[in-house]
Amino acid sequence: MTKATADAGVIGMAVMGRNLAKNIESRGYTVAIYNRSYEKTEEVLAWEHAKGAKFVPAKELKDFVASIKRPRRIIIMVQAGKGTDAVIEQVGPLLDEGDILVDGGNAFWGDTDRRNAIGKAAKFHFIGMGVSGGEEGARLGPAIMPGGDKAAVEKLMPILKEISAKAGKKNAEPCVAWCGEGSAGHFVKMVHNGIEYGDMQMIAEVYDVLTRGLGKDHAFCAKTFKTWNKGELASFLIELTGQIADKVDPVKKAKKGAKPFYLLDAIRDAAGQKGTGKWTTVAALEHGVAIPTITAAVDARLVSSVKIEREFAAKTLKLARKKVKGVTVADLSKALYAAKISAYAQGMRLIVEASKARGYNTPVQEIPALWRGGCIIRAVFLDRITDAFRKQPDLASLLVAKEFSKDIKRTLPALRKVVAAAAIAGLPVPALSASLAYIESYATARLPAYVTQAQRDAFGSHTYERNEKPGVFVHTEWLA
Amino acid sequence: MTKATADAGVIGMAVMGRNLAKNIESRGYTVAIYNRSYEKTEEVLAWEHAKGAKFVPAKELKDFVASIKRPRRIIIMVQAGKGTDAVIEQVGPLLDEGDILVDGGNAFWGDTDRRNAIGKAAKFHFIGMGVSGGEEGARLGPAIMPGGDKAAVEKLMPILKEISAKAGKKNAEPCVAWCGEGSAGHFVKMVHNGIEYGDMQMIAEVYDVLTRGLGKDHAFCAKTFKTWNKGELASFLIELTGQIADKVDPVKKAKKGAKPFYLLDAIRDAAGQKGTGKWTTVAALEHGVAIPTITAAVDARLVSSVKIEREFAAKTLKLARKKVKGVTVADLSKALYAAKISAYAQGMRLIVEASKARGYNTPVQEIPALWRGGCIIRAVFLDRITDAFRKQPDLASLLVAKEFSKDIKRTLPALRKVVAAAAIAGLPVPALSASLAYIESYATARLPAYVTQAQRDAFGSHTYERNEKPGVFVHTEWLA
Repeated sequence: MTKATADAGVIGMAVMGRNLAKNIESRGYTVAIYNRSYEKTEEVLAWEHAKGAKFVPAKELKDFVASIKRPRRIIIMVQAGKGTDAVIEQVGPLLDEGDILVDGGNAFWGDTDRRNAIGKAAKFHFIGMGVSGGEEGARLGPAIMPGGDKAAVEKLMPILKEISAKAGKKNAEPCVAWCGEGSAGHFVKMVHNGIEYGDMQMIAEVYDVLTRGLGKDHAFCAKTFKTWNKGELASFLIELTGQIADKVDPVKKAKKGAKPFYLLDAIRDAAGQKGTGKWTTVAALEHGVAIPTITAAVDARLVSSVKIEREFAAKTLKLARKKVKGVTVADLSKALYAAKISAYAQGMRLIVEASKARGYNTPVQEIPALWRGGCIIRAVFLDRITDAFRKQPDLASLLVAKEFSKDIKRTLPALRKVVAAAAIAGLPVPALSASLAYIESYATARLPAYVTQAQRDAFGSHTYERNEKPGVFVHTEWLA
Repeated sequence: MTKATADAGVIGMAVMGRNLAKNIESRGYTVAIYNRSYEKTEEVLAWEHAKGAKFVPAKELKDFVASIKRPRRIIIMVQAGKGTDAVIEQVGPLLDEGDILVDGGNAFWGDTDRRNAIGKAAKFHFIGMGVSGGEEGARLGPAIMPGGDKAAVEKLMPILKEISAKAGKKNAEPCVAWCGEGSAGHFVKMVHNGIEYGDMQMIAEVYDVLTRGLGKDHAFCAKTFKTWNKGELASFLIELTGQIADKVDPVKKAKKGAKPFYLLDAIRDAAGQKGTGKWTTVAALEHGVAIPTITAAVDARLVSSVKIEREFAAKTLKLARKKVKGVTVADLSKALYAAKISAYAQGMRLIVEASKARGYNTPVQEIPALWRGGCIIRAVFLDRITDAFRKQPDLASLLVAKEFSKDIKRTLPALRKVVAAAAIAGLPVPALSASLAYIESYATARLPAYVTQAQRDAFGSHTYERNEKPGVFVHTEWLA
């Protein structure tokens, strides 16, 4: 009989799984590892990091399970979807009451709800856990978003806290928190990804204004983003943009002494997506929350993907375009900051409303806190969002938090200016525009929705409320 | 035994059902009518229009069915959802092979797929049919969007053509067409509603620019919309806006000789929605189609609905707002026209892509044709869209149709100007901005999506394509 010596187990030895296993092992834990095909497990054992590592490999799942101390802590790191279902089906019957089975994949939260029910029926704890940070994050410190049974998550916490990224004061706060009941962990991870879409699209738009709009070259952009990374925009994605902007094309070489070709110029402008952005928009609509910046980013990728059509339309329409006027680099930085506040306000609102509607009981103030390190949207700015929600966990919107309302007043004029100048020049800035419109709408006491309500009542007898009697719906014979 | 004398039957004697029944009857048909509670059926019989009408009322569903000539044509007009399911469950077993059961309610297309399967199993034809036009349309001539088995729809056509609105040359073309297989009818109706959301929101935004932005009063707006209704914007919704704009408040009376109070000013600016707009956005995402104008309209209603929060945010943020400068009423009319082309291009694209993906085999050119009359989005402009798609049924986008590419060149500068001026003034124009960005993006050969692709490859090894090798995905070690 296999002796239970491992402190935890990881199923799936592809890139994310092997790096997470190594991360756990590097903190002094003994880690059982398993992969459907044993080859990958052998690769991990042969891997340079594995020299002398406390891995307990297993060819058979039953031996893998038997090698882990009870209550078992097992993290599944396989491709989201059918792969996860197959693993649960196989490993479930081998578990004992009180064991904890964690799905660390990029699961759709609806699937996590379904799997929670399977766990409940079988008396083991199923924990849906978002992990962000890619390969490097998994190895050195990701942001970790577990959800589900709180006591079970507590049992995982010693390990999760050690392996996670650190942020906050003295970099001492682990980037992990219980995100709420049920599928809250994967829901929060999805919103993280939606915000990531928004951030990336707004950076792309600003990049377009810099290059097509203001005529700057990639070298200038690289410098600009590097400078921005020292200020209030400091974040992983701004830093990365500074690094990739002047990357020299490794394929198309310039003649000696000539200017180099930049890799960005060689990249086909058709953006791909794996679906989490779309999920976020759909979830937002289901919960009655507007996240226009994130949706605009998803749409921008969709439009970019019909590249051949766009080339045809560009030739057919030959729209007149001008240089962007009256906008400075400092304006762009402020505009991006204002637009980011808008996008994060939308995303946080979705988490708050989903928590209410779905009974997640999410500790809202802990979410921006755990995003401060390890994940793709990590940013200095998240320190301030964390402070805002810690001071006021029931904050209606980031836009009305004391520190951010000041920021908006300072930076909104620049966002208005950039959106206006881009519109006149003929440059598309869908996500920046959406961020602007969101702030302007949310901070307007009286919107023209009264016209909408009047129309709906006039053609469809949908009724409307009068200002002095909210909640009382009346109908008018408009055309009488 | 009941004698089969009726040419068709209608189930559901609420507003839409009774008006549709009367419409059919008024064309010389004998119509069987049924309602769960017989009271409503009696109401219809007592109704002034019913004097001498050829209605065959029934208290029991089996008598209703027996009173209709075979193959039976029965239209269900009950509340979408569970009501429809209940009726199908009850009436299904009473039908004979080849009978045609039509759902004329505002069903979700996914439900129609499910019900089609029930019909197939039971050997009757189930037809999901969108009906637009509200109470008046149902009575005098709606736009009708049947989908499903083509031969079965052909058997309905004689009646549908008579009861539908008429449009086109000499007003002789019935506003009805087979919309495609399966749930195509309800899908097309959903897109109609999505476009309606877009049209309404853009009108509201223009109204806001006229009033808050340019300082015009409701009387001026009424005149403006009435004038616009004589030009290229001529449409039901523009006409309606002209009619409601200066409607006097029936509750709050002005003193004798004083200016009247307008009803619009009394209406609470919190827009409601029944869900078809959201459905459209979700369906678009599922089919990989961007419909940013429609989504912005849905989001605008959502933001408007948090009225109390907005009032608080307006007080907290106290954003500086200015009058709109440099924009004329003529600019607004052109801007709205350009933005409408964008919205309809998005909607038509969704229909085309859904037809491909779902095997609807929708005759695309017939859709704008049938929207020309009877429905909420009816507009002179749809004559031109009809022409464009009839000339070129495989048109990639309305934006590149010959007649519309000219229009865009003529009107886009105004849309750019209006969006820019509103941005500077601090007025939210989310749907107009989204329409603008859609045109600008679609007509751009090179978008900054190359930045997005570079970022995705740099942080997640998602790979990218090089310009010279589309379809070949490569990875770069960006930070090496």
